[in-house]
Amino acid sequence: MQQLRLAVIAGDGIGPEVTLEARRAMRAALDGVELVETEYALGAAHYLETGEILDDATLEQLRHHDAILLGAVGGDPADARLAGGIIERGLLLRLRFAFDHHVNLRPTRLHPKLASPLRDPGDIDFVVVREGTEGPYVGNGGSLRTGTPHEIANETSVNTAFGVERVVRFAFELAEQRDRRLTLVHKKNVLVHAGGLWQRIVDAVAAEHPDVAVDYLHVDAATIFLVDRPSRFDVIVTDNLFGDILTDLAGAVGGGIGMAASGNLNPSGEFPSMFEPVHGSAPDIAGRAIADPTAAILSAALLLEHSGHPDAGRRIRDAVDADVDARGGASRATHEVGDAIVDRIRT
Amino acid sequence: MQQLRLAVIAGDGIGPEVTLEARRAMRAALDGVELVETEYALGAAHYLETGEILDDATLEQLRHHDAILLGAVGGDPADARLAGGIIERGLLLRLRFAFDHHVNLRPTRLHPKLASPLRDPGDIDFVVVREGTEGPYVGNGGSLRTGTPHEIANETSVNTAFGVERVVRFAFELAEQRDRRLTLVHKKNVLVHAGGLWQRIVDAVAAEHPDVAVDYLHVDAATIFLVDRPSRFDVIVTDNLFGDILTDLAGAVGGGIGMAASGNLNPSGEFPSMFEPVHGSAPDIAGRAIADPTAAILSAALLLEHSGHPDAGRRIRDAVDADVDARGGASRATHEVGDAIVDRIRT
Ligand SMILES: CC(C)[C@H](C(=O)O)[C@@H](O)C(=O)O
Ligand SMILES: CC(C)[C@H](C(=O)O)[C@@H](O)C(=O)O
Repeated sequence: MQQLRLAVIAGDGIGPEVTLEARRAMRAALDGVELVETEYALGAAHYLETGEILDDATLEQLRHHDAILLGAVGGDPADARLAGGIIERGLLLRLRFAFDHHVNLRPTRLHPKLASPLRDPGDIDFVVVREGTEGPYVGNGGSLRTGTPHEIANETSVNTAFGVERVVRFAFELAEQRDRRLTLVHKKNVLVHAGGLWQRIVDAVAAEHPDVAVDYLHVDAATIFLVDRPSRFDVIVTDNLFGDILTDLAGAVGGGIGMAASGNLNPSGEFPSMFEPVHGSAPDIAGRAIADPTAAILSAALLLEHSGHPDAGRRIRDAVDADVDARGGASRATHEVGDAIVDRIRT
Repeated sequence: MQQLRLAVIAGDGIGPEVTLEARRAMRAALDGVELVETEYALGAAHYLETGEILDDATLEQLRHHDAILLGAVGGDPADARLAGGIIERGLLLRLRFAFDHHVNLRPTRLHPKLASPLRDPGDIDFVVVREGTEGPYVGNGGSLRTGTPHEIANETSVNTAFGVERVVRFAFELAEQRDRRLTLVHKKNVLVHAGGLWQRIVDAVAAEHPDVAVDYLHVDAATIFLVDRPSRFDVIVTDNLFGDILTDLAGAVGGGIGMAASGNLNPSGEFPSMFEPVHGSAPDIAGRAIADPTAAILSAALLLEHSGHPDAGRRIRDAVDADVDARGGASRATHEVGDAIVDRIRT
């Protein structure tokens, strides 16, 4: 029987609760495929217990999977031992960089039965293609005279033609399969070197895709459109930091961050891609069985679609749609949502 | 008679139309003060005509004013001669840096009669204190092998204890006069050096202001709160780029970018402060007398309040409030809005 070797990093807070439901949905949706699940105890709790964030041997093991499902990582933000984003950088970003997850795919679609915070949301259905391995995320910074009145702290955003082009190409190919509209978001009137590079590459790749309508927005203006007229967007391509900001906002206007799924893709397949809800570990509601697992379940659907099991992914997606059709945004226990979706997958 | 020496940079697009109304409002509101207005023809149009953006002699002249009122600068974004943000950087950012406008003050208050794009906006009344002279705006970037497949483009964000502390102090003092709640917005789990500096300084200044409740949000999470629960904010203090992004979004949720005023402050008074609407030059609607001048008029009110004429500023603000009370968000010609506000100031 065909196998799908899945690494599961349930992580912290609500991570374990929501990945449990996502795994049930995957098992129900896969047909004639053996799901081989290996759990990796990683995250803030693991670090506080063992002092390890992600050792090389574990990284090597993770590598030998078809895909990774991640719940959420990060502990109590008030815990000084976790300051400086040590878990986020040492685990989440380390995986994105080590496995060259250069496409961070973040779709937003407002289900008609879900309330948006927007009065008149219109038809929200777009995808953000966020670059995942460059920009201000490279960790190229430092501080002099730290903690003194003469401190100077720098952060350098690094952007390469190689790194930008592959993401831009991915975005254009996606636009070809969708509504053929692509928006570059940057801040090229201020970040002229990075922005100039992005714009030049978008222009060059656009010339190969004359059927895709291309425009440009400054990141500040893009946030206005996300609340005033989100239907203007089809595919957004943007850098790592702007993509981070825009996709939280997109999640909020697109039915809530409890619905927002994401994939950290290595499209070549050289390394496993990693799928995770956009939301965080939400320590305030952890352990109370009230977290909405839908974003994790939709991340599992993305995972299946990008691991050669598009039908199984579609089954999960249809079940989620039907569930939201029936229940709208009613709050239910985590496992009740999971039960309802698994039932629908099975029928 | 007391004088207020005002430099006016009407600029491009709708800039001249909206500053005209702002100047009428100032003249009507000032009592026993002579308003000495000097117009400076600067902006994209001026640059295309003369090849000059801002020469040193003009900068020196501008310096000898009590305040600067700016409309909007920037021409047709499709004009290749204006690419690379040449006007924005050479004029707007040059003024902010040359006149050490380190506090970029951007209040948002949703008038009850104005529609917000949010279904349930609640009580929106907060101020963003955006740092104005550091961060990714310093122009510390470059590109190697530009335009080749091996291009690398870097942008460096520069942050100093000196630069951050003065803005943070300003924000705490503002919070003392308001609802005593201050939120630092950054991305300290990724930009650890810059974010660490900001957090350390906020912690240190917070210790001197035990009556101010302080919290922290990552910039991505802050955008969610701006649409889900904007009433949670009172004073936001943040860096130059995050402030740029958040204040466009804030303008949109707070009654529209047509209401959003700003002040680029040099609180020491060593250089003139500069006041401008948050909106841009909107070339698409320029010359049609349909631009809403309210943001420019409210910027004039801010200007008066920060130039020793708080009563005149208050008169403008009250007139704008009364005008919105009476008319809501009805669209009117630019000069009709100006007329209505001037009439109310006079009575
Ligand atoms: C946790 C954090 C490092 C991460 C990011 O900034 O990429 C998160 O916000 C996300 O969007 O996945
Ligand atoms: C025009 C641009 C350089 C400017 C900025 O980024 O500061 C504008 O967006 C603003 O917010 O005042």
